[in-house]
Order: sequence, then C-alpha cells, then structure tokens
Amino acid sequence: MNAELEEATPPHTYVIGVDFGTLSGRAVVVRVSDGTELAAAEHPYRHAVLDRALPDGTPLPPDWALQVPTDYLDVLRTAVPEALVRSGVLPEQVIGIGTDFTACTMLPVLADGTPLCDLPEFTGRPHAYVKLWRHHAAQAQADRITALADERKEPWLKRYGGKISSEWEFAKALQLLEEDPELYELTDRWIEAADWIVWRLSGTYLRNACTAGYKGQYQDGGYPSADYLAALNPGFADFVTDKLEHPIGQLGGLAGRLTAEAAQWTGLPEGIAVCVGNVDAHVTAPAATAVEPGRMVAIMGTSTCHVMSSDQWAEVPGMCGVVDGGILPGLWGYEAGQSGVGDIFGWFVRTAFPTSYAEEAATLGRDAHEHLTALAADQKVGEHGLIALDWQSGNRSVLVDHDLSGLLVGLTLSTRPEDVYRALLEATAFGTRTIIEAFETSGVPVRELIVAGGLTKNALLMQIYADVTRLPLGVIDSAQGPALGAAMHAAVAARAYSDIRGAARAMGKARPAVYLPDPDRAADYDRLYAEYRLLHDYFGRGTNEVMHRLRRIRAQASA
Amino acid sequence: MNAELEEATPPHTYVIGVDFGTLSGRAVVVRVSDGTELAAAEHPYRHAVLDRALPDGTPLPPDWALQVPTDYLDVLRTAVPEALVRSGVLPEQVIGIGTDFTACTMLPVLADGTPLCDLPEFTGRPHAYVKLWRHHAAQAQADRITALADERKEPWLKRYGGKISSEWEFAKALQLLEEDPELYELTDRWIEAADWIVWRLSGTYLRNACTAGYKGQYQDGGYPSADYLAALNPGFADFVTDKLEHPIGQLGGLAGRLTAEAAQWTGLPEGIAVCVGNVDAHVTAPAATAVEPGRMVAIMGTSTCHVMSSDQWAEVPGMCGVVDGGILPGLWGYEAGQSGVGDIFGWFVRTAFPTSYAEEAATLGRDAHEHLTALAADQKVGEHGLIALDWQSGNRSVLVDHDLSGLLVGLTLSTRPEDVYRALLEATAFGTRTIIEAFETSGVPVRELIVAGGLTKNALLMQIYADVTRLPLGVIDSAQGPALGAAMHAAVAARAYSDIRGAARAMGKARPAVYLPDPDRAADYDRLYAEYRLLHDYFGRGTNEVMHRLRRIRAQASA
Repeated sequence: MNAELEEATPPHTYVIGVDFGTLSGRAVVVRVSDGTELAAAEHPYRHAVLDRALPDGTPLPPDWALQVPTDYLDVLRTAVPEALVRSGVLPEQVIGIGTDFTACTMLPVLADGTPLCDLPEFTGRPHAYVKLWRHHAAQAQADRITALADERKEPWLKRYGGKISSEWEFAKALQLLEEDPELYELTDRWIEAADWIVWRLSGTYLRNACTAGYKGQYQDGGYPSADYLAALNPGFADFVTDKLEHPIGQLGGLAGRLTAEAAQWTGLPEGIAVCVGNVDAHVTAPAATAVEPGRMVAIMGTSTCHVMSSDQWAEVPGMCGVVDGGILPGLWGYEAGQSGVGDIFGWFVRTAFPTSYAEEAATLGRDAHEHLTALAADQKVGEHGLIALDWQSGNRSVLVDHDLSGLLVGLTLSTRPEDVYRALLEATAFGTRTIIEAFETSGVPVRELIVAGGLTKNALLMQIYADVTRLPLGVIDSAQGPALGAAMHAAVAARAYSDIRGAARAMGKARPAVYLPDPDRAADYDRLYAEYRLLHDYFGRGTNEVMHRLRRIRAQASA
Repeated sequence: MNAELEEATPPHTYVIGVDFGTLSGRAVVVRVSDGTELAAAEHPYRHAVLDRALPDGTPLPPDWALQVPTDYLDVLRTAVPEALVRSGVLPEQVIGIGTDFTACTMLPVLADGTPLCDLPEFTGRPHAYVKLWRHHAAQAQADRITALADERKEPWLKRYGGKISSEWEFAKALQLLEEDPELYELTDRWIEAADWIVWRLSGTYLRNACTAGYKGQYQDGGYPSADYLAALNPGFADFVTDKLEHPIGQLGGLAGRLTAEAAQWTGLPEGIAVCVGNVDAHVTAPAATAVEPGRMVAIMGTSTCHVMSSDQWAEVPGMCGVVDGGILPGLWGYEAGQSGVGDIFGWFVRTAFPTSYAEEAATLGRDAHEHLTALAADQKVGEHGLIALDWQSGNRSVLVDHDLSGLLVGLTLSTRPEDVYRALLEATAFGTRTIIEAFETSGVPVRELIVAGGLTKNALLMQIYADVTRLPLGVIDSAQGPALGAAMHAAVAARAYSDIRGAARAMGKARPAVYLPDPDRAADYDRLYAEYRLLHDYFGRGTNEVMHRLRRIRAQASA
C-alpha cells in the first residue's frame, strides 16, 4: 500500500473513471493503491455528432455541432457495468466514481437539470440541444465578446491570450439569446456537460473550477460584469446571475454521493463518492505524472489539448487560458489547444480513402489509418512536396479563430493519399510547435512533451512530433489516460489520497523520452516549418482574409 | 455534293482521321462530302504514361512523363482497321489519312526514324523514350532559355508571351543534352511525335508548320540562332542545324503517299494521300467551324488548349504562342492552354473517391465522375466554401510555370468529395477566364467559346464555364473533334477541298450557344474569381515562392 493512502482505505479498493469523449464514453476500473487498470469498456454515442441535421431531420447551418444528452446517460448504463463485470471487481469494492468531459460543451436545462431538448415540444429546435465543444457557429458573438473586452480593457481578457473563443460558455450563450430568445428565456441553467453528468450522478449541481476558469471566464472570484454584458446585448446583462453563477467545486473535491437512480444505472453502490466534474485534457495531466512545471501534456485525440502547470504567470498570446489552480492547486494551469487533429485524419480517411487502398488495407489486415501510416512511414522529410494548414476545424491557439479553414498546397498529379495523409500529420505537429514557441517566447519554458490519447498508438506521428518540436517525447502508459485521471480524482474525492499530487505519484503512469528528435530530420523539418509559418501568418493574421470571406460566402449560399 | 468539292472526287468518298491522345488513339471514318462520321474505334496505349518507372522498372524522378512509340503504331494496326470494318466503307473508297497528336511530344530517333528506346541497349535509359507533352522535368532548362532570350532581347520571345515552356522542343532537347549527352550525340533527329507518325505512314519526314511554330520556336522563317544556343550551352550550338531543322509542311498539305508497310498495318490502300502532321488542339478549330476571328475553341480533355485565329497581332502575356497561319492560312493563330483539366479531375477520382461513394455510384450505374457531378450539381455558387488553384500539372498560360502546384483552401471537417470535385471544376473555369482576360486586355477580343473534347459531356462543367466566363458556350457536334479535324485535313491533302476553310464549311460541326451565362450565378462567381485571382497572383507571381521551394525540397528528398 502506498504511504499516502489514508488509513481508512482498505486494500483491494477500486475507483471508476468515466471519460466522455466526442464520439463515445469510456469507463475504466482502477485499483486505488497503484493505478492498475483492471478493465475498460466503451460505448459509442448513438447520435454521434449532429452537424448536418437534428434527429428529426431539421437541417443545421454550417459550423454547428450538437449532441444528445441521453447518449451520455447510456454510457453510465452500459459502459460502467460492462467494465465492472469485465474487471471481476465487486460493486462493494468501489469507493468512488469520477468523470471527465469534453469542454466547452454546453446545454440549456431547467431548474431540475432537464435538458430542453428532452422536452417533446423542442425536439425540432437546434438551440435546445447540447452545443459540443466544436460547435463553431458563435464566431460572430465571440468576435464581439473579444472586441468589447479589448475596448473596455477588461482585466480578464489577458488570461485568455487576448481572445475569447467561440467554443466557450459566453459566446455559445449569446448565440442562444440572439438566435432563439424564447429558449434562452426558458433556460434556468446554462451548464457544462461536465457538471451536468455529475449532477445526474450525485443529485448535486456544482460548477467545477476547471471549466469555470478556462471556459466560463471565472477569474479571481468573479465573472465578467453585468455592465459589460449589457453592452454586449441588453438582454444579456443578467446572464451570469440568472443562468450561470453557481457554487464552485474544486478539482478532486466531493460533489456528492451516488444517488439511488444512478446506482441503478451503473450497478455501483448507492452513496459512494462522486467527484466534482473535470475536463478530459486537464484530468490527464496528473494521470501522465505531469505535476511539475515545464512538462507539457498533449492529449491527442479528435483534437489536441495542451496542458501544463507552471510556477510563473505570463501572458501567452493566443493560449486558451491560464487559471490559478486550474490543473493542480498552487500552480498556474496553462491550456492551449488545436481544434482538429485526429478529426482531420478521420475526415481524410472518411472522404478521401479510395477503394483500391481500402482493398489493399483489408488484404493486409490494416485499418485505413494503419495503412496510410505504413505507406507514408518511409518517406523522407519533404518528399511528398506538400504543406498543409491544420485548420479544418479552425484554430484554437495561437490565432484563436474558428473561421479559419484547412489548406493544402503542393498538390500534383503524382500526389497520392499517403502523401496528403503524411502532410496532415505533419501540419498538426507544426501546429503544436507554433504553440510551444508561443509559450517559450512569453517566458514559460517547455522542456518535455508527454503525449496521451488515442493517437499515441501511431509511432510515425509520435516521431514526427519529436522531430518537429525537437523535444523528447514521453508517452502516457495507459490507453485510457483521461479515464485514469478521472479515477484518480475519484480516489481523492473518496479521501484515499489527500491531494491530486499524491494520487499522481501513486497512480500516474508515463514512459519518459520514448521518442527522441533525430537531428537530420529536425533540420529538414525546420525548412518545412518555415513554409508553414509563412502560410500561417499570411492566412491567419489578416494579410489575406480569404478563409473568412469563403465562410461568409458559404453561409450566404447555404441560407 | 458541296460546291467546293473538286470535280475529280467521286461520291461516297471517305477519309480517315487518327487522333493520338495522351492515353489512347482514336480513328474515325468520315464522309468527304459532308463530314458524317460513319464509325470510330479507340485503342488505349499499352504503357499509358510512364511517370514512375520505365517498363523494365528503372525508376523515374518527379515530373517525368514518358511514352513508348510502338504504342502509337498499335493504334494504326488496331483502331484504324476496326473503325473501317465498323463503318462498312471499303478500303478503296478511302482517299486519304490525316493525323493529329499531342504536342509538344518529342522523341530522339536515328536517321531512318528508329526511336532510340527501340534499340535493346537503351531500354533502361529514360532519355531514350518519348517525352510526353506533360513531361515537366526540363523546367530548369526552360527558365534559362527564357532568361537568356529576355537578356538578349531575342525577337521571337514576345511571340510566346514572353516565356518558353518546359514542355517545348528546345527545353526538352537541352535536358537531353545535359543529362544524357551520349544519347543526345546518338540522336540524328529530335522529332515531334506528330511528324514521326506521318513519317511512319508516308515514308517522308516533314516538320509540320504548327508544331514548328508553336513548339519549335520557328518564326519568320528561322529558328533561334546558333550564337544564342551556344550561350545556353556550348554543346547546344548546332542543335538546330544538326538535329532539328528540316523542310516544313503546311497544314493540310500532302506529306506523301501511304507506304506498303503502313497499308498493311491499317488495311488501307497503298498510295493514298497522307496529310502533314498536326496538333490535336489546332486541328479541332476548323472541325468546330471556328474559322473566324473571336471564336475561341477550347479543347477540353486531360488538359485544355485554347486556339483562336485573329486578324490582328498582339503581344498577349503568357500565351503559348502566336504563329502566322498556325491554324488557318492568312490569320494569326493564337494558342493558350491549361496543363491540367481532366487530368486533375481524374487524379481526384483516382486518389480521393472513397469506397462508400464508389458503392453508391455502382448502385446508381454511374461512373465516379458522373456521380460526383450529380452530387455537386445542385449546389449554390460558393456553398462548398472552397477555392482551388488548378496547377496540379503546373500553369501553361498565363504564368507559364510548371513548377507551380495545386492548392485547396477552405477545407473543413464537413467538406465532402463532391465539394472538392466541384471546386476543381470551377478552378479550371477560373483558369480559362484568366486566359480570356489576358487576351482581351491585350486587345484580342474573345466573343464566343466553342468547346470540344471529352469534357463536353459534363453539362455542369459546361454551365460553370459559361457562368464564370460570361460567354455564350457552343459545343462541337462531334465526339471525335480532333479526329474529325484530322480527317478534314486529309480531305484537303487528297485535294477534295482546295483549302481548310472550304473543308470546315462542308465538314465542320458545332452547335452554337448551347450554354448561356446565368447573370446571378455569374455575379456570384465574380466574388469567387476575385479570390482565385488573389491567390493566383500571390502564389504565381513571386510573392510567396512556396510552391517552387516545395518542389526543390521534394527533388532533394527524392534524390
């Protein structure tokens, strides 16, 4: 037994972590003493992401991305009991459950937590649904939020790199107000899905400190002022007090006890500890043992989040946010991100993987990603002649502009799918390097990269990241990083550890420096990166606003 | 019988036109009196285009594109007799055969016309093969040819829009000299495939006036001087006199009489008229009845050639060439072109048409192009949010730079194959508009566009061209425009008509103004075209030389 384990915790004690991702939820059963993962189970969301139409066929405009909250409850009903059965652990050995969620993923609910889209009269109303993190249709609102804050010199703006994202709580809420005022009016709580699921489990609504800080602009104990909000839109003046403000729960804190209803869903004992909500990226940092300054964790899945704690505060242009204790108590938590990473590779495979390749992949027993990776692996740096900009889902950091879009240059009649695929892998690595350079330039050093998430299984991708960033690349030693992190937080909520650092030391898992930069390839990548940065600045910093104009033209044509 | 028909020509008299394209050859049997096409037959080249390796596996560097000359002879042996049999015409009713070819497609031959690649000792030597028009590996040579001519103010340079293409006779020959001097030395004749095939048919080598002018820099009765050539490379000084210069045959002229050997190949009577060689694009103009100034013919296949006769000479920047009588005697013949059109659509279908689409297309009985076109047809202008630059095969006009490459901007996670496909269709239309505007700005008016070639069957593409160019769009009324044109020239060579204009009036076929521009869509396309031009100039005119740099990096990485 680990020394930090409190005496009251018996041996053979377990916690459950549940990670709510973009397309599915995963539950994992974890031993409290050493973090061993006994079993996991995954449940894909039945409705996945609604980005073209509602379930009843109501079409959605461009840039929308919605979800259905009952899909989340299905994860509790299926993946949790399934993981438990697979693990062989008895329900009575489980002392707590922790969750993490995509963010900023928001939904409008009634005072009792009922989502508006669950009301039969609103099933055809887009604004009644969950707005997934990658719902990017509130860019106009985000632009106004930033511009007004800049004009009024609102002190919180610099905590977010000078830009407020269209993905966040205020932009999405303002869009709701302005496009469907009736539903805005009916919304009692504008709530993070991360907190909604904890409410469903524990019967208690608490805003977690992480999303409140990073996504809800909660800084130094307060929100943007009513005065500021009224200047945005008179009807928005009371948004914070009416719909948002609520007690804050600290990370690893106890939200409440598992309700009878949730016990029935999950097969877990009523009354066990339910941890305060958390975010997939942030919860992964301690899971990957990144509890010291300078160790950046990149959680690479559909998108990438970069989280890092530091003992110094700095204004890093275009980062997602810096929150005091946002990852670990006592350190500044920094977050940056790339809106599209695995999503871009998935989009490519879905829309551009030709039949001849699919047949060859099937013959070789590879999936599409494995096949393209294998075909691309032996290329020399620059051999495909391509540069891509990885903005198919916009740019979350450093430019913070979701109206940007993807670009490919260098295409010839000889360009093959594996060439484009490799260029897309590289583009996301260039995106990460751009973020790291923004930190370093601002005086926040990055010494090591630890990667977590589904993309760690792609060794070519990992090596490209090491070569492009010239950093040693560690890899989390768990296939379920966020779920492991959520379980660790559950262990803290259940008082098995006194704090997250203690839990990280006992339960966290990472293999350091698995991939090291190759000097020759790194030098070759410097040349390609220079091209990337030239295009990045040309298209991203206003010299040619073609991406914005194309989006406007598209919106008008689709209207 | 047409009044222009000479008295000696009996009724029920026929000519054969043979069109040698990029991937196949097509023969058509045509009635002399009215141009009726009785039958056609096609033969695909066994080796198609060699762009990755020679037949023996010898790998080829990037940008190479070779062919095998025996593939051309196979067309004479198969397609010609097959068309004849299908037509029901008796061999003795055929009075002549005419050919047209891709250009500039060059091969090195011995004094008797034997291609060097037919010699067993050279089957593994890339430079022994035919360099297809879209062989773009002589860009460095082309750049020097242009720069030196510019520096020395060579008078012929302005006849080619100020730039000499890497596709043409001198650039390809200089590459041969500099990369394989032994084979250069062994080359007795550096010959257009257009003239080589006529030599095979008639036993006579004549350089046709069209390629000599447009591709061989033959102007006002002479070639670039030995002095100039020596300055390019001392070993190149005698290139014209040693390997190129040869009597010129006029378009529609008699090259010679069908040899016994060629009669055996084709099943045609020995001794019938064999017409001087010609080029697929140029020979199509009279087939499409474009014998008046201002009627531009666009031959749209793998690439597009624009040909137009005019009674005025002007310096049009970046056109392919202006040749006195290059299309019709007595008029200035203008040529411009786009290196990749159908080739780009084909590349996209080959490399980016996913299995789910292939299955749906199969269910609906559509080929990939039909399916993507159907899916894209109902989109509003700009709805896909994309702009493409159509330079996957470089830019032949207005920029004349084959080191440029394709670009796609506006990609999002919602971008579908039909979106990209439509953007590629539109990009080629923007390319055509750029060329037309270059003509108009230079004082050579374009009043009407007549389209020929395989792409005329795509009604969406045709309508896009009408909308983008705001010109009425006529369509040639023959599926075998070049072959029909070649047959018309054969009729002139056989003295059935006194000149090409007479043959065009009797035998040419076009439906005028089949597609008319829609004012609303044209206005919407103006906005997209403005974006295209902005990117065109940024990437094409030196502001950002990324495409050139990527090509250099690619070449170094592949070396």
